[in-house]
Amino acid sequence: MGLDALFSPRAVAVVGASNRELTIGYRIIENLLEFGYQGPIYPVNPKGGEIRGLKAYPSILETPEPVDVAHIVIRNKYVPACIADCAKKGVKAVIVNTAGFREIGDEGAALEDELIAVAKQTGIRVFGPNCQGVINSDPEVRAYCNFTFTRPTRGHISIVAQSGGVGEVIHQRITELGVGVRKYASNGNACDVSIPEIIEHYGADEQTKVIAVHIESLPDPRRFLEIASEVCRRKPILAMKVGRTAEGAKAVSSHTGGLVKQDTAIELIFEKAGIVAFRNIEELCQSAIGFASQPVPAGNRVGMIANTGGPAIIATDELIEGGMVMPPLSKPTEALLREKLLPEASINNPIDVLATAGPEHFAAAINALLDDDGIDAIFLNFVTPFFVDTLGVAREIAEANRRSQKPIVATVMTEKQGWAETLKVIRDSGVPAYDMPDTGAKVLAAMGRYAAFLKRPTEQPTSYKGLDASRARSVITTARQAGKTLLSAADGFDLCTCYGITVAPYASAANVDECVAAGDKLGYPLVLKVDAESIVHKTDSGGVVLDVRDRDSLRQHAETMATKFAEASPAFLVQQQLSGGLELIVGAKAVEGLGHIVMFGLGGIYVEVLEDVSFKITPVTRREAREMIESLQAAPLLTGVRGQAGVDLAALTEIIQRLSQVLIDHPEIRELDLNPVFAFEQGAKVADVRVMV
Amino acid sequence: MGLDALFSPRAVAVVGASNRELTIGYRIIENLLEFGYQGPIYPVNPKGGEIRGLKAYPSILETPEPVDVAHIVIRNKYVPACIADCAKKGVKAVIVNTAGFREIGDEGAALEDELIAVAKQTGIRVFGPNCQGVINSDPEVRAYCNFTFTRPTRGHISIVAQSGGVGEVIHQRITELGVGVRKYASNGNACDVSIPEIIEHYGADEQTKVIAVHIESLPDPRRFLEIASEVCRRKPILAMKVGRTAEGAKAVSSHTGGLVKQDTAIELIFEKAGIVAFRNIEELCQSAIGFASQPVPAGNRVGMIANTGGPAIIATDELIEGGMVMPPLSKPTEALLREKLLPEASINNPIDVLATAGPEHFAAAINALLDDDGIDAIFLNFVTPFFVDTLGVAREIAEANRRSQKPIVATVMTEKQGWAETLKVIRDSGVPAYDMPDTGAKVLAAMGRYAAFLKRPTEQPTSYKGLDASRARSVITTARQAGKTLLSAADGFDLCTCYGITVAPYASAANVDECVAAGDKLGYPLVLKVDAESIVHKTDSGGVVLDVRDRDSLRQHAETMATKFAEASPAFLVQQQLSGGLELIVGAKAVEGLGHIVMFGLGGIYVEVLEDVSFKITPVTRREAREMIESLQAAPLLTGVRGQAGVDLAALTEIIQRLSQVLIDHPEIRELDLNPVFAFEQGAKVADVRVMV
Repeated sequence: MGLDALFSPRAVAVVGASNRELTIGYRIIENLLEFGYQGPIYPVNPKGGEIRGLKAYPSILETPEPVDVAHIVIRNKYVPACIADCAKKGVKAVIVNTAGFREIGDEGAALEDELIAVAKQTGIRVFGPNCQGVINSDPEVRAYCNFTFTRPTRGHISIVAQSGGVGEVIHQRITELGVGVRKYASNGNACDVSIPEIIEHYGADEQTKVIAVHIESLPDPRRFLEIASEVCRRKPILAMKVGRTAEGAKAVSSHTGGLVKQDTAIELIFEKAGIVAFRNIEELCQSAIGFASQPVPAGNRVGMIANTGGPAIIATDELIEGGMVMPPLSKPTEALLREKLLPEASINNPIDVLATAGPEHFAAAINALLDDDGIDAIFLNFVTPFFVDTLGVAREIAEANRRSQKPIVATVMTEKQGWAETLKVIRDSGVPAYDMPDTGAKVLAAMGRYAAFLKRPTEQPTSYKGLDASRARSVITTARQAGKTLLSAADGFDLCTCYGITVAPYASAANVDECVAAGDKLGYPLVLKVDAESIVHKTDSGGVVLDVRDRDSLRQHAETMATKFAEASPAFLVQQQLSGGLELIVGAKAVEGLGHIVMFGLGGIYVEVLEDVSFKITPVTRREAREMIESLQAAPLLTGVRGQAGVDLAALTEIIQRLSQVLIDHPEIRELDLNPVFAFEQGAKVADVRVMV
Repeated sequence: MGLDALFSPRAVAVVGASNRELTIGYRIIENLLEFGYQGPIYPVNPKGGEIRGLKAYPSILETPEPVDVAHIVIRNKYVPACIADCAKKGVKAVIVNTAGFREIGDEGAALEDELIAVAKQTGIRVFGPNCQGVINSDPEVRAYCNFTFTRPTRGHISIVAQSGGVGEVIHQRITELGVGVRKYASNGNACDVSIPEIIEHYGADEQTKVIAVHIESLPDPRRFLEIASEVCRRKPILAMKVGRTAEGAKAVSSHTGGLVKQDTAIELIFEKAGIVAFRNIEELCQSAIGFASQPVPAGNRVGMIANTGGPAIIATDELIEGGMVMPPLSKPTEALLREKLLPEASINNPIDVLATAGPEHFAAAINALLDDDGIDAIFLNFVTPFFVDTLGVAREIAEANRRSQKPIVATVMTEKQGWAETLKVIRDSGVPAYDMPDTGAKVLAAMGRYAAFLKRPTEQPTSYKGLDASRARSVITTARQAGKTLLSAADGFDLCTCYGITVAPYASAANVDECVAAGDKLGYPLVLKVDAESIVHKTDSGGVVLDVRDRDSLRQHAETMATKFAEASPAFLVQQQLSGGLELIVGAKAVEGLGHIVMFGLGGIYVEVLEDVSFKITPVTRREAREMIESLQAAPLLTGVRGQAGVDLAALTEIIQRLSQVLIDHPEIRELDLNPVFAFEQGAKVADVRVMV
C-alpha cells in the first residue's frame, strides 16, 4: 500500500483529543479546522462530550466509518493497544505523536517494538512515534495532521524531515518567503513509515516539483539510495548534509539514539543518487524556490545581466565557484546588444546595461541571451533606481519568462515597500527574485549541479567475462570454516586472480625448500613474506624481506623467518618484486545495510599526510572509477605531468571495477585492501592484499 | 583635516538641484528633508526660485555661510570649475554624484585629474566622483547626503562600500533585519577621499562599534593595511572577499577600470590586518548585527543549549567548521544541570533541555554556562513550542544577557507574527535572534575569528644583528648599473650571505682552472653551474651539472660548458652538493604599492601539482613565518611524521624572516626565489637563488 491514505485521508480521528488549549490533542484539532480540512474530524476522548465544537467519541471503535488517519496522543504505554483498536476499526494509518519510545532507551525501544509488531500483524501503517505528523495543502484535502504552526500556501515543494525542528524551520522559511508548499512530513522515530517511502510518495505526486529532505541517519541506506536514485531522474531532491564534523556526528548519534555513524556514507549516497546537497538550510530553502519555479538549465553556461557592477562581481564569483561558466557572448549577440543598449553599456558577460537602463534595454538584453545558443541560463542583477521605470522592467522580465525555456533567476535589490509592485510582477511571473546576488547565484549553481546529474548517462557496472566467482566463494568459505577472519596472503591473491585482477607473480611455499624452488621459477629480485593469520603487522615484525637478489639470500632469509615465527607455524609467499611504478592503494570497507565503500588513493604520504583519497559506493561503474582517479588532488601524477607519461588509467579503472565486483559477489567481506598496487605506463599489478571477512 | 565636516555638515548645498522628481538633484533634497537633516539645505540652480519649498540660490557663492558639504550633480565637464567655486565659498567637502569620469575612459580620466588638481590647490575635499554619497544617522545630524532609498534607524554599524550597489544591498539588509546603522559611505571613483580614510574616521567614531567594508580593489594597499591594522585592534572590521575567481577578478577589473589585479593580495591584507572576511553578503550583514550587539568572546569555546535536537546538530557542524570548539561540560556544571533540568534532558554539549522546557530550565542552563569558566560563548537554539511559556523564556534570556560578559547568540525558530512579543523581548535585550541555526552559528564563528585575532600578540618583525645591508645595496646597484634585471647566481648568493641566509658553500670561477681550484677547496661531490644573465633556463640547456664526483670530471664538464656557452662568455659557479634534506621553495614577488608577498612551500610536485603553498605580506614576523610552515597541507612532513624527525623549523622560520628583511631593505627587488632550499634535521641551506630587480 502506498501512502495515499496517510496524506489524503477521508477522515481524521484524534485519540487523546482534549479541550485544554496547550495540549497537542487540542492543537491538532485546531490546526485541522483552521487549515480547512475537507473531511470529517473525530475527536476521541473517554469522556465524550464536545471538543472545540466537534462531537467527541469515547473510543476509536465508535467513530463513524471510514477513518483513514488517527492521531494518537495518549500516554506511551497505552499506544500499542490503541493501534490495535485502530486496526480493528479499519484505520489505514496512525500518526503517533506521543513520545517516550526508542529515543528514551531500552524500555521505550521495547514499547516501540510492540508498535511494529501490531503494524506487521494488522497491516496498519504507523507514522512516528515521537513525531510531528504530515501536512497536505492540496485544496481538495487540506490535511494539517500536525501540531506545528506554519500554514502553507499551495505550492510545489514537498518536505520530509527526520528532525521536526529542522523540518519546521524549512517549512517556515519557505512560507515566509511567500512560496507555497505541497506536502510536509516529519516521522520522528520512523518505526514503520520511512523516509525513503515518503520520498517515493512525493516522487509519484504530480504536483510535487521539488523535494526537500533532512536526514541525520539512514536505517536502510540501500533502500534510500535506490529510491532516491530513481526519483532524482524525474525531479530534484535537495538535502542537507548534517553530521559533517565529528562533533556534529556525535550530536546526531546522541539525538537519534546511537545509530550507526554514516556521515561519509551519506555524502556518497547523495552523490550517487543525484541528490543536490547543501551545507546550509537557507540555501536549501532558497534553492527549492528556484527549482519549483524555473526549468532546469540544459547546461552550466550562464549569461548575466546587471545594472550595477558590484553585485555582478559577487554573483560571478559565486557562480564560478559553484561550477558554472560565464562564456563570452557570441558575435551576433554582441552586435545586437551594441545596437540596442545604451552606448556606454558594457557588452561583456556580465552585461552591464547601466543604472539608467529602462525596460527596453533589459528586454533587449534578456531576449538576446534567450536567443543565444551558447547560454543555458540567465542571471539578472536588478537594482531598482528611483529614476527608472522599474515596473516596466519587471513586466519585460515577466514577458521574457513567459516565452523562455531557459531558467531565469533574478536578484532584485530594492526597498520592498516602495517597490512592492515591481517585486510582485517579477515573482508572480515565476521568476524567483532574491535579495542578494550571492544567494541567487548559489541557487542557479545548485540548478546547474542538478543539470549536470541529469546529463550524466545512466550506466550499468561493467560486466566482466571469465570470472571465477564460485572458486572465490570456496576460498572465502574454506577460510571462514577454518575460523579465520583474515584471509592468508595466498588466499587474498587467489581471490584477485579469480576476478582477473593482475597480481605480481607469486608462489606459496610451505617451507624453506619450497621457497627456493619458487624463487628459481619466478626469478630475482623477489619479495619474501611470512603468511600466517596470527602475524598482523608483518612488515614491522620482520615478516617481509624486500629485494632478495639471489637463491642464497632467499634461503637464508627464509630460514631466519622460519625460526623467528616458528610458533605461528607459518607458510611463506615468494613474489616477484615490482619497481618503477607509482604506488597506489585501492581499499574497501563494508557499510551495514548499504554494501561497500571503495577507496582509491596514492600510497604513503598522499594517504597518510595529505589524506588525498576518493570514495564510491559499490557497484562502481566505469565513470565512477574514472572519477575516483580524476578527483584526487594528485591526479596529475597519474594522468601525466612535467613531461612524464602518466600511468595506465584504463588498467586502474578496471582494477577498481573488478574489485567492486568482488565485493558485490561476496558481501561477507568486511575489509579489503590492495596495498600497494603498482601502476605502470602499461598495466598495473597488485603487490599485496589484505582481506577481512 | 579629518572627515568630520563631510559626515556632520553644518549646512548642505546641492548644486544642480531640480524640481523634476526623477532627478538626483531633487532626490537628494527630498532625502535630506525626509530624514530630518538638522542643518540648513541650500538648493543651487541658476534659475533660482524654490525647490521643494526651499529657496534656491543661483550660485554656490551666493548661499549663506557656512556650507560644509556641497553635492555636485551638474554635467561632468562643468564639475572642476564648480569645485573651485565651492572652495572659494569655503565649502569643506564636495560630493560629486555626477558620473562620466575615470570610469568612462581617457577623456573622463583627464577630467578627474582636474578635480584632483583643484582639491590639491584649494584643500577642499572631493568625495567621488560617480558616487552615491554619505549618510550619518546621528540624531544631532541626520545627514542623508545620498540619493538611495534605505532609511536607517540609529545604530552602531557603519558601512563603507566601493560599489554603491553592494553598499545599498548591505545597508538595506541590515535595516530590513530591524537593526540600526550609524554611518554610510560609498565613494565611487574615490579620487580624493579614500576608503582607508573613511575607515579611519569610523575607527575614531565612538558610536561605531563595527565597520562593514566592501572593496573590489585597493589603489593604496599599504595605507589600507596600516589603517585597518590599527582600527581592527579596537573594533571589528568585516569585509567581503570579492574577485575570488578569475572571472570575478576580470569583472572587477572591467568594473573599476583596469586597476592592478590584487585578489590574492587583498586576502592577505585582510588576514594581516585582522579583518573578518566573508564570502557572502548575507553572512556579513548577519555578523555585523552580532558584533554590534554582543561582546567579543574571550575564546572559541561554545556552550550550546537547544530545545530540539536537529537544529543543534546543524549549528554544531557550522561552529566546528568555523573554528569553534564545543568542550564537554565541567563536572560541577553537569551536576547543576542534572539537578535543575527535566530528568530526560541531555546533559552534554549541546545541552538538550527538551521541547517541554520552560523559563526556569532555560534560565538554569544559561546561568550554568555563564558561570562555567570553560565556556566563552553561549549559543541558544530555541524553537517556540505552543505549549511552553515562550515569553517567560525570552525574559530569562534577556535577564541572563543583562548580567553576561560572554556573548549570547540565539536562533529563534518561530512563526514571527504569533510569537512577535517573544522575539521582541529577546531582540530588545540585545541578544541577536537568527532564523536559522547555521546562520547564528556562522555569526558566532565569525566573532570567534575576531577573538582569535585580538588574542594574537602584536609582534614586531625580528631584528637581526650583523646584516650587511649596504654591501647588499651595492651588489644590487652595481648589477642595475650594468643594465641587468636578473642578478648573477654569485650576486644572488652574495645577497643571501649579507643577510645571514645560509647558502651551500660555493665559489665563483671565471674559467675552467678556477673551477678546478674551487673544487679542490670545496670538496666533492659538487654542482657546476654556468652563471650568465643571458642563459635563463640553465638546467634545460645543460648549464647545470649535478653530482660532479672528482677533479677530472669537474674539469671535463667545465670545458664542455665553456665551449657550449662560449657566446655568452659566461662565468661559473662551483658549489657543494647538498643531499638528504627536504627540498623547499621560498619565494617573493613585489606588489605595487604594498611591498612583497613571500611564498613558502615544498618543492616539486607539492608546488606544481598540489599547489600546496602559503603566502604572507612583508614584513613577515616570527609568528607569521611559523604559520606559513604550519598551514601547509604537507606540514607534517616538516614537523615530523611516520616516525621521522622532521626538519629544523627554527632555521626555516629564520630564513623566511631574513628574506623578508632583504625585501624590506631593497624594495627594488621584483622577484626573489630561493629554490631549492634544503632543510635538514639541523639547519637549512639555500642551493639556488634567482633575483630579479
